[in-house]
Amino acid sequence: MTQTPTATTTESEPHTAGAAVPARTMRALVKSKAEPGLWFDGQRRLPTGSSGIVGAPGPTEAMIRVKMAGVCGTDRHIYEWDHWAQSRIPVGIVTGHEFVGEIVAVGQGVTRVKVGQRVTAEGHITKGTDFNSRTGNAHIARDMRILGVDRDGCFADYVIVPQYNVWPLHEDVPDRIAAVMDPLGNAVHTVMTAGVSAQSVLITGAGIIGLMAVTVARAAGASKIFVTDVDPRRLELAKELGADFVFDPTRGDDWIGVIDQHTPGGGCDVLLEMSGAASAINAGFTALRNGGTAALLGIPGKPIEFDLSNHVIFKGARIFGVNGRRMWATWYQMEELILSGRLKLDKIITHTLPFEDYERAFKLMQSGDGIKIVLDLTA
Amino acid sequence: MTQTPTATTTESEPHTAGAAVPARTMRALVKSKAEPGLWFDGQRRLPTGSSGIVGAPGPTEAMIRVKMAGVCGTDRHIYEWDHWAQSRIPVGIVTGHEFVGEIVAVGQGVTRVKVGQRVTAEGHITKGTDFNSRTGNAHIARDMRILGVDRDGCFADYVIVPQYNVWPLHEDVPDRIAAVMDPLGNAVHTVMTAGVSAQSVLITGAGIIGLMAVTVARAAGASKIFVTDVDPRRLELAKELGADFVFDPTRGDDWIGVIDQHTPGGGCDVLLEMSGAASAINAGFTALRNGGTAALLGIPGKPIEFDLSNHVIFKGARIFGVNGRRMWATWYQMEELILSGRLKLDKIITHTLPFEDYERAFKLMQSGDGIKIVLDLTA
Amino acid sequence: MTQTPTATTTESEPHTAGAAVPARTMRALVKSKAEPGLWFDGQRRLPTGSSGIVGAPGPTEAMIRVKMAGVCGTDRHIYEWDHWAQSRIPVGIVTGHEFVGEIVAVGQGVTRVKVGQRVTAEGHITKGTDFNSRTGNAHIARDMRILGVDRDGCFADYVIVPQYNVWPLHEDVPDRIAAVMDPLGNAVHTVMTAGVSAQSVLITGAGIIGLMAVTVARAAGASKIFVTDVDPRRLELAKELGADFVFDPTRGDDWIGVIDQHTPGGGCDVLLEMSGAASAINAGFTALRNGGTAALLGIPGKPIEFDLSNHVIFKGARIFGVNGRRMWATWYQMEELILSGRLKLDKIITHTLPFEDYERAFKLMQSGDGIKIVLDLTA
Amino acid sequence: MTQTPTATTTESEPHTAGAAVPARTMRALVKSKAEPGLWFDGQRRLPTGSSGIVGAPGPTEAMIRVKMAGVCGTDRHIYEWDHWAQSRIPVGIVTGHEFVGEIVAVGQGVTRVKVGQRVTAEGHITKGTDFNSRTGNAHIARDMRILGVDRDGCFADYVIVPQYNVWPLHEDVPDRIAAVMDPLGNAVHTVMTAGVSAQSVLITGAGIIGLMAVTVARAAGASKIFVTDVDPRRLELAKELGADFVFDPTRGDDWIGVIDQHTPGGGCDVLLEMSGAASAINAGFTALRNGGTAALLGIPGKPIEFDLSNHVIFKGARIFGVNGRRMWATWYQMEELILSGRLKLDKIITHTLPFEDYERAFKLMQSGDGIKIVLDLTA
Repeated sequence: MTQTPTATTTESEPHTAGAAVPARTMRALVKSKAEPGLWFDGQRRLPTGSSGIVGAPGPTEAMIRVKMAGVCGTDRHIYEWDHWAQSRIPVGIVTGHEFVGEIVAVGQGVTRVKVGQRVTAEGHITKGTDFNSRTGNAHIARDMRILGVDRDGCFADYVIVPQYNVWPLHEDVPDRIAAVMDPLGNAVHTVMTAGVSAQSVLITGAGIIGLMAVTVARAAGASKIFVTDVDPRRLELAKELGADFVFDPTRGDDWIGVIDQHTPGGGCDVLLEMSGAASAINAGFTALRNGGTAALLGIPGKPIEFDLSNHVIFKGARIFGVNGRRMWATWYQMEELILSGRLKLDKIITHTLPFEDYERAFKLMQSGDGIKIVLDLTA
Repeated sequence: MTQTPTATTTESEPHTAGAAVPARTMRALVKSKAEPGLWFDGQRRLPTGSSGIVGAPGPTEAMIRVKMAGVCGTDRHIYEWDHWAQSRIPVGIVTGHEFVGEIVAVGQGVTRVKVGQRVTAEGHITKGTDFNSRTGNAHIARDMRILGVDRDGCFADYVIVPQYNVWPLHEDVPDRIAAVMDPLGNAVHTVMTAGVSAQSVLITGAGIIGLMAVTVARAAGASKIFVTDVDPRRLELAKELGADFVFDPTRGDDWIGVIDQHTPGGGCDVLLEMSGAASAINAGFTALRNGGTAALLGIPGKPIEFDLSNHVIFKGARIFGVNGRRMWATWYQMEELILSGRLKLDKIITHTLPFEDYERAFKLMQSGDGIKIVLDLTA
Repeated sequence: MTQTPTATTTESEPHTAGAAVPARTMRALVKSKAEPGLWFDGQRRLPTGSSGIVGAPGPTEAMIRVKMAGVCGTDRHIYEWDHWAQSRIPVGIVTGHEFVGEIVAVGQGVTRVKVGQRVTAEGHITKGTDFNSRTGNAHIARDMRILGVDRDGCFADYVIVPQYNVWPLHEDVPDRIAAVMDPLGNAVHTVMTAGVSAQSVLITGAGIIGLMAVTVARAAGASKIFVTDVDPRRLELAKELGADFVFDPTRGDDWIGVIDQHTPGGGCDVLLEMSGAASAINAGFTALRNGGTAALLGIPGKPIEFDLSNHVIFKGARIFGVNGRRMWATWYQMEELILSGRLKLDKIITHTLPFEDYERAFKLMQSGDGIKIVLDLTA
Repeated sequence: MTQTPTATTTESEPHTAGAAVPARTMRALVKSKAEPGLWFDGQRRLPTGSSGIVGAPGPTEAMIRVKMAGVCGTDRHIYEWDHWAQSRIPVGIVTGHEFVGEIVAVGQGVTRVKVGQRVTAEGHITKGTDFNSRTGNAHIARDMRILGVDRDGCFADYVIVPQYNVWPLHEDVPDRIAAVMDPLGNAVHTVMTAGVSAQSVLITGAGIIGLMAVTVARAAGASKIFVTDVDPRRLELAKELGADFVFDPTRGDDWIGVIDQHTPGGGCDVLLEMSGAASAINAGFTALRNGGTAALLGIPGKPIEFDLSNHVIFKGARIFGVNGRRMWATWYQMEELILSGRLKLDKIITHTLPFEDYERAFKLMQSGDGIKIVLDLTA
């Protein structure tokens, strides 16, 4: 006989053969109050499956024991309880959406994954009925809900996701990297959407994903990489990761002129916008050559003044909005890149901390002393 | 022995065999003064070739006797002497850039065209050395100069253009249509860049090119066409040309909701922006489905407030800036479409007037009683 | 123990609320013997779901009552028991894979469709775990199995398919057309893969799908359509459906020269190969212009002599192999085209016969007097 | 006063200011007889321009003093006087089409290049009037003629080409590499047409261009590279250039199985066919995954048995025929790759020999002891 973690039910009996049976409660980082902070709960109830049963995945869901979880800029927004977080996050939710773990239970309709598999998951969850879900673009489905934002996430010992969202891991992908495939996937999605092979590339913004984009663009065949940021430490790191030229636009140098001099078309072939800042966006488009391609991932907080005529129309430019990761083209590309050994991620994943040290993780992010920080739930 | 129209020279002796020898002066519409208006000059000197000789095409140029010329919105800007015209147009220039005619002389290095050919021409002129000129995108070369804007144009009996810019006409393309292949090419370029085959298409702005885009999109395979404009006559005409739904956005109807209801993806697949108006651009992007494609041809007069996050990034949208016509992919596509007999251009070319009636042409455009007006220099 | 849908079971209780309860047996066309023919069985057991229960869809499956079913060339191969059929078809199988019907029961993990919906289905069935299934190309997954070929099909009162494969029908799509969306989808997939907007198109082979491709290519924006076939009735029909030129290549006319004369590139822009015949393939590539695109759907029975150097390499040609229908891009495009009212399918669906008259259907196909024949199970 | 090399003429007076005036005769390798061999002529007349004057470029041509020239497999065919050479090469021609040099004279209509520039040239010469010439694909124009094959080539002190065909060199591209941009461009064209960024790539055939494709694919972002050839020395070199796995298919190992194991889609994403051998082509397509892309550059000497059904149609594969180099997209990409410093060409350009040692160059190619050999005309 098989058992669910906390209850026996004929309706959605999960298959747990071969997996350690989870406990009835778990550790979790919870957004318990409508104020800055996250609260550690050592006695959180297990997550609830689609059938409404606590600790039991629904018919087509999997429950995963979390081993490591990455801390995202989004988590920092939730921690700091900024305007966006206040408008979006339901108080009481378990946060976190980047992780690696092992499947411990699956619903009876599950056929694609199985208990015991080491996995990560795509955090963008849809019902599969939207036009875009049905045409290979589930990442932009209108009914898309996000793990750790709209439903209980992975800063916890257990998390439940649809089988569709599970990504079984190649044995050669280390846990530390598997835990951050969500943001790395953002970088890969952006780089691959623009297309960088034998192209000169400008990356505006050297945050976590911008830095990942440097090493990804290099491995994906960019011929020349320019990076802008206002933090000299980030620019230095960008050079170590493969940038050929780095610029601090606040210094007043004619960095756009430098790009012009080093490109046959009078500007970069490709712009990867990673900052969301209006000034960087406008400067980035100015530095783009006529006929160039821009992929936009950074999210401006509000509408910006944008010169469509000179930046886009007269230039004959192409723009791609980028959101999430393509399921699963981006993930396969990412796996290929990781396994190639050409991604330099060790300098980006600066810290691995025990789960309970999560406060320190946020402090490191806020000070800029840490970049990507991974919480280890097995430590 | 061959002759140039006005002088004999061994340096750039044009081949005129078989063509009527032009006179030493010609009729022309000249921007003679820095004030509203255009002035008819019955004794204008012939145009000057690249070798600096009046009436003689340079080594790789052709001189064309103009038969018909289309009046463009750009010409109206020049006529009305608006802010853009004041900043761009050199006083004294012959205006006009849409025409059909016959080659009467060619330079000695000319190998691609010959005297006697019925032709029109691409008005975007480049030296051929820019990155984009050399990679199949001369329409967005940085050194691009425009006929009738930056150099003497075709509102005259003769015009000189590089052989590269000449488009020999298929015998089945009538003169009246040949005279307006420049704006028709804008419409074809926009439609083909976006790709409308089996797609639902929203066209914002039913001016000359917007209306042309309706019939082009229909012939090019659009499954459903929505059009917005504020002029009920234009909307009515759009329906005659093939639009399935037309909307006046100022009426307060929920027209975006209507598009949502009639499309499986909750919005149109394709947006063709033909107005340059901020309100139309923002509404157009709102009506675009996630993952949709926008091609922008209409030119906003200044930077606009643009919601990159919701219009582009979260949507995973693609945007193509469109300028001019691709040399010569657009022209071949246009010829194919014209010869297919499926373009309804007769309702768009509302008037053909004798050259000397040019004042009436501008009046018809200003009143909205005329749409595309062609001047006949042979009448 | 196995049960029909009307019983109650805790293991795979289908939701049947609101649907007519199916009987315990059904009518079916069965490949009962390893010899030419199909045999009508009025007492066939209901289809078996993935849980192994007769008459009960598995957790993520739907059972559909069939209303109409199209007869495919593949069915004729099975009927005639040719070499391919002998090597592939398991004796005892219910045949048929094109149909329209209504969902009568669903498994408990089904969330995307519901009982009572009018639907058709994609007959290419995969587990969803293959690389191509996971990257938007399930139609070429390695584990793909075909309805009515590898598992019980739709020449029966009931058929079971995964919910993933169900296509809910737009109310404006008539049953007769819904019943043949499988082959129509082949035509749409081929046309849309090649891209025909403002292109000259050669279709080699005017069988069912070739003829469908004519009307689809016309609606999708082809500028000029050439068709080759050896049957003058099919060529005549191709003209009625929108072909501009039709050729019988066995007549010895220089039809490739005619194409050359009517195309600016010295050949058609696009080749849609629908015959699978070596002679047609070679002639088609000869008629393709340099830089042209070929989409191949017709399946040669064995390797052919093919001139890669002259047909592909020196030409700089592109070739796309086409198989099945893209899930679900092709289906949305097909729906758009059907709803546009521009497809002429009535002349292709020549007969609608009562289910029991299936022998006559095969006779009509064999004689060429019928083209697409639909069996009506409600008659 | 300016002078042509051999004559003064007002009709096509070349501009030679600042360039050393060439002599009246030159050294050249001539295909003097219809038998194996090439003959050194120390008193060859200068090349003839399009105006028919010896030693004078036509109005839009440039004359170039050759500094270094690469020896191509095509030159070896001409040297060995094989069946192809006998059918194509006019006896008396100066051979050679890969070179670097300096412009010494230009025609009076020349505006894009000037005397004194260090240049190489695209050897595919067209009139510019063909459909493909006019749509960015001059490399597949029907009127294409090849330098050193159809007209006098670059195994000589001087060569004349149209200004359109001249590629001014970036100062950081060394002469030795500039001399072989023609075959390197074949490799770049093939790699960029297929698209290798984050893709697994199989290269069948490790000849000169196959080996160049290895280093180009690596620099352009291939994630994994497989190479097949029958020569162990070439396979060894392929590994040094960046191949991850190399196979000799004649050894009977299950190398296709190895590719299957190392790729998530059960085969390589991309096939670059560089051998022209039927066995390699068929094996390459077998090793290609469903939905994969093949770019074919190797030229089979005659039609081959090809399994379109299994290799292309059921697989949903894409095939691109590749010929020459795109003007000038390929050249810009090549320049970007060379300047990136990531191409390993030194191991491929095995020898640089004085011009007069050309016999040794062919011997080295025939023995396999040399790969790419460059003749130095300045030595």
